[in-house]
Amino acid sequence: MSKNLNIVIAGLGTVGTASIKLIEKNKDIFSIKSNLNIKILGIFAKNKSKSRSFKKNRYKWYDDPFKMIDQYNVDTVVELIGGEKGVAKDICYYALKKKKNLITANKALLAHEGYNMAKIAEENKVKIGFEASVAGGIPIISTLKRSFKGIKINKITGILNGTSNFILSNMLDEKNEFKTSLKKAQKLGYAEQKPENDLNGLDTLHKILILSGIAFNKQIDLKKVAFSGIKNLTKADIFFADRLGYRIKPLGIGCFEKSKLRLIVAPFLISKKKELANVNNNLNAIIINANKNNKNILIGEGAGGDPTSISVVSDLINLHSNDENEFMYGSSHKKLKKINPSNFFLNNNSFFIRAKIYDKPGAIAAISTILKNFSISIKSLFQEQTNKKLFNIVILTHKCKKKSMDSATTKLNTCHFLKEKAVIMQVLHV
Amino acid sequence: MSKNLNIVIAGLGTVGTASIKLIEKNKDIFSIKSNLNIKILGIFAKNKSKSRSFKKNRYKWYDDPFKMIDQYNVDTVVELIGGEKGVAKDICYYALKKKKNLITANKALLAHEGYNMAKIAEENKVKIGFEASVAGGIPIISTLKRSFKGIKINKITGILNGTSNFILSNMLDEKNEFKTSLKKAQKLGYAEQKPENDLNGLDTLHKILILSGIAFNKQIDLKKVAFSGIKNLTKADIFFADRLGYRIKPLGIGCFEKSKLRLIVAPFLISKKKELANVNNNLNAIIINANKNNKNILIGEGAGGDPTSISVVSDLINLHSNDENEFMYGSSHKKLKKINPSNFFLNNNSFFIRAKIYDKPGAIAAISTILKNFSISIKSLFQEQTNKKLFNIVILTHKCKKKSMDSATTKLNTCHFLKEKAVIMQVLHV
Repeated sequence: MSKNLNIVIAGLGTVGTASIKLIEKNKDIFSIKSNLNIKILGIFAKNKSKSRSFKKNRYKWYDDPFKMIDQYNVDTVVELIGGEKGVAKDICYYALKKKKNLITANKALLAHEGYNMAKIAEENKVKIGFEASVAGGIPIISTLKRSFKGIKINKITGILNGTSNFILSNMLDEKNEFKTSLKKAQKLGYAEQKPENDLNGLDTLHKILILSGIAFNKQIDLKKVAFSGIKNLTKADIFFADRLGYRIKPLGIGCFEKSKLRLIVAPFLISKKKELANVNNNLNAIIINANKNNKNILIGEGAGGDPTSISVVSDLINLHSNDENEFMYGSSHKKLKKINPSNFFLNNNSFFIRAKIYDKPGAIAAISTILKNFSISIKSLFQEQTNKKLFNIVILTHKCKKKSMDSATTKLNTCHFLKEKAVIMQVLHV
Repeated sequence: MSKNLNIVIAGLGTVGTASIKLIEKNKDIFSIKSNLNIKILGIFAKNKSKSRSFKKNRYKWYDDPFKMIDQYNVDTVVELIGGEKGVAKDICYYALKKKKNLITANKALLAHEGYNMAKIAEENKVKIGFEASVAGGIPIISTLKRSFKGIKINKITGILNGTSNFILSNMLDEKNEFKTSLKKAQKLGYAEQKPENDLNGLDTLHKILILSGIAFNKQIDLKKVAFSGIKNLTKADIFFADRLGYRIKPLGIGCFEKSKLRLIVAPFLISKKKELANVNNNLNAIIINANKNNKNILIGEGAGGDPTSISVVSDLINLHSNDENEFMYGSSHKKLKKINPSNFFLNNNSFFIRAKIYDKPGAIAAISTILKNFSISIKSLFQEQTNKKLFNIVILTHKCKKKSMDSATTKLNTCHFLKEKAVIMQVLHV
């Protein structure tokens, strides 16, 4: 009585392997909940000889992923290789052009090519499922597309990078320096061996761009967005923020107000009383503000094979069960207007400044004069000796213009008594 | 170019009014996101003369809701009257039998009649949207139905009654007794004038039963579930729990393990470190445990016109846009097996006991002997004088069998030195 859903899978890393295991394990659940029998008609990965934690010989191996897709009875192609270029990209486009539904977790590709992929999918009357591309096991794509269909979304605020969130949590919990916490994250499988894109904010940028495209129905140019990550933060920042009543969280924020789209990717200070401040370790979280005052928060595991495979499998079933042509961004790519985002908030904001300075007389006077000259007033200030010759000066400002703060920062960084560039972070006021 | 979606609305209270206003305000968003033009072909409420905060004369008023539904071009009937009997029930069944899609926020009706309604809807090839019936603006129904389609859900834990959650939060924050906080809740619109079903747990029962039906694909008999609410809790309970490191939260829990469904509706003690402990005031929250270790948390406003109308409008659009016959409980009513739920956890649990006793010698000895006789060991105990003649004795037990605790409670309540029945609550271990 069940219908067959025939799929092929390209990419057999953590998520690919977990997806295959989930499909094997849950056959009875598919038939109860969706009347489907998922059949894997082929698998492909770059490295055939690598050992995998599922029985490879149960499935037909293809050395050529395009031949695998060419099988006439394939309904859906699952791409779990990753990367915005190379074979992953080729597989995605090939699948769409061959009129196959596509499931992908490839956030980098989607951030670069998503709108074009939506166009190709529409032209070929197939669908793209990408729940697994953002926030692992949290069903954020589906929620944005389905649960706010007649509603204006005002703002999306997310902790979208589990690696960064884990490191900052661990620095606080275990009083570690950045490098020690990074090593621990790598040991636990929360950070890759080459974690650059996670630590510099690029991964968060990819994800908030994908979510913002859906939430605001806009076509956003990736290249126009500034981003910063956690890689320059030190234990001192974590503990000074703590003393001031804040946690530091790596955020991606998209908001649409007064016809302007704002995209901001940076670590922020968040009051300990706020929900996001208490989302720790490798968890992700997203706040959706809609219809002005409505707020919804989703929290869950943002990465890893098990949670992400839930998103892959849900997409598989939903794409197939649903007759209607569900658009990738919730509406046709033709309706997605191009927009250039700004990289700062409309309203004034408070800032956290930490400057490491040589013990020279007049340093505080100099810094406070710079701030005064740009009309920035100080809310808290403290100074602490780190060793014989060096001090940390930490300042929390009252709300001021981003522009003033940028100018003050430039000026500040020219001071001869600074050991290194000052660390500047915004405070999340919401 | 837009298609018309023709609806009629029965019930013009908080949610009905907010839904009409949202439909009026968001015309342009519907056309961008869904290509639909929602037209209201008729409105009905019990009281025609009552003033409403929208312009009634924009819409055709019907004194007879059935005549309103009879219009040949009505696509969807929206029922926002509420109540498991009377005209609300009649309208729902009439709509389904007339082959109209139905949107309803009527949790009491759904808890009593949901499975039968699913049957009638399937027979008539129409759909029922009921996102607004549980947790207001949180898209929990859609999430359970769509995002865990191939996945086994193990457990649902929810703060589902905003009234109760507000009262308990307020008792702690403002050091109020129950009655004062209830009055405040009523003043702020968070509690009805007749709040019995909110305070005795029945409202939570209705909601967790609806969610459990979807999550576990079972048909659950409402009459087989025990429930208790917050109405007997006092300021003393709140502050003793606080001192022990806990918050008290009104929970509905459904879990399926070892072929048994467990449904529990009661206030629980939750460690302050846990997520649900920090969901305060009128907020609702739901934790979904799936595929053994996966955890997703949704937090948002659980009641009120604005949030709930978002769910109504999303349902309106989703039901209409989707060609596929989406089953009410995620799968056909024919597949929903009947099951008798148990009312207690499989595993042992800790308990909080507060007994108000007259100042008589030997009371503590008597209580601790009773516990000892049922093999219940004490983790913490303290005693505090409330006035010249009365004491509160508070005990936190180690984990023990529910059955032992029930027997001990029965015995305890026979003690002559007790002023009133002891308050007993479970601790949430997860």
